[in-house]
Amino acid sequence: MAGKAILYDYWRSSASYRVRIALNLLGLAYETVSVDLLKHEHKGIDHLIRNPQGLVPALAIDGHMLTQSLAIIEYLDETHPGAGFLPADPVGRQRVRALSYAIAMEIHPVCNLGVISHVMQLTGGGDESRELWMRKFIAEGLTAVETLLDHPDTGKFCHGDAPCIADFCLVPQVYNARRWGADIDHLSRVNTIVERCEAMEAFAAAQPDRVKREA
Amino acid sequence: MAGKAILYDYWRSSASYRVRIALNLLGLAYETVSVDLLKHEHKGIDHLIRNPQGLVPALAIDGHMLTQSLAIIEYLDETHPGAGFLPADPVGRQRVRALSYAIAMEIHPVCNLGVISHVMQLTGGGDESRELWMRKFIAEGLTAVETLLDHPDTGKFCHGDAPCIADFCLVPQVYNARRWGADIDHLSRVNTIVERCEAMEAFAAAQPDRVKREA
Repeated sequence: MAGKAILYDYWRSSASYRVRIALNLLGLAYETVSVDLLKHEHKGIDHLIRNPQGLVPALAIDGHMLTQSLAIIEYLDETHPGAGFLPADPVGRQRVRALSYAIAMEIHPVCNLGVISHVMQLTGGGDESRELWMRKFIAEGLTAVETLLDHPDTGKFCHGDAPCIADFCLVPQVYNARRWGADIDHLSRVNTIVERCEAMEAFAAAQPDRVKREA
Repeated sequence: MAGKAILYDYWRSSASYRVRIALNLLGLAYETVSVDLLKHEHKGIDHLIRNPQGLVPALAIDGHMLTQSLAIIEYLDETHPGAGFLPADPVGRQRVRALSYAIAMEIHPVCNLGVISHVMQLTGGGDESRELWMRKFIAEGLTAVETLLDHPDTGKFCHGDAPCIADFCLVPQVYNARRWGADIDHLSRVNTIVERCEAMEAFAAAQPDRVKREA
């Protein structure tokens, strides 16, 4: 028996937040082990054995150590029939993946701790330039997502009327937008969908502040 | 009838390069329409209608306009049985996606034209700082990929003995590493796999310099 799944995560990491939402929606029992990014625990030997990239999350499940949040979520979808994290038709699946990547590839990596630290080092900038960087890339990226959501297949959630991988990416990115004060109040589709997600317990229980409080 | 596929791409774009490799491996006939990033054609109304994100590539196929390179490649895999862009087993699929994202999420977006232009604007840096930025993020990222390839499932290619999505991501990233002079000569697994891919006509015909020459 492989035993209970273990999620190696950090409360504030968006990628960890995505995986917590997916695990909660499946109702899978899992333990969490915190990898504190501010203490550089992700670059320590214990964590590098789990993930040579030195990133969170990593998920120990079914006897395997899995990395990269979206690859983990696709795995969970494939191994749990009926999970429904992606629609059944190839065109719908393509749209959901494209929406997910519009966030997970175009916004999130640019606002990664390592990248922003390097920018700060180059510019000698302080908190204010960090905030400006975050606000710019998050607001631009989510504005593009808002336009992508102007589509007949958008429903109560990003695609149809049940939450999918794109919603798992959107909610953490909007959490980050609020944290950094990015100007996204006018993105009505984004905000309506996020509000609907946040009302669900699977999303609420994955929320960073709640995870931290309950740790 | 949906007619021949049309790829809206740019010769030097890594994401376009990935999709060209996939289309070539399938032996699918397609036309290409160039969207010149240096002339800002990707931000023009013609292209924004295709992709509101203003990114290349976009693929018109089967009556749909698809965006985001990896979502396009997953679609091609799902709609062409036997394509084999991903292995059959969920654990193998997870590994291939994680490898792909280690490149497409962790390296490529940080070296995106829009991001680097903004960094240059902040730092007032010129060609040299641009090169240093590229070299740093590409070398660090590919070093992590080299470690991920130290794995029993690595074969002649990133996963087993046939090229998969991870190879489609790796080859363009190494093309970029060479372009910017990133120090990756010692990454023997990466270099051996890329050499093997480049010997295949499907990869060679997708190569930016050849695409430009034949345009």
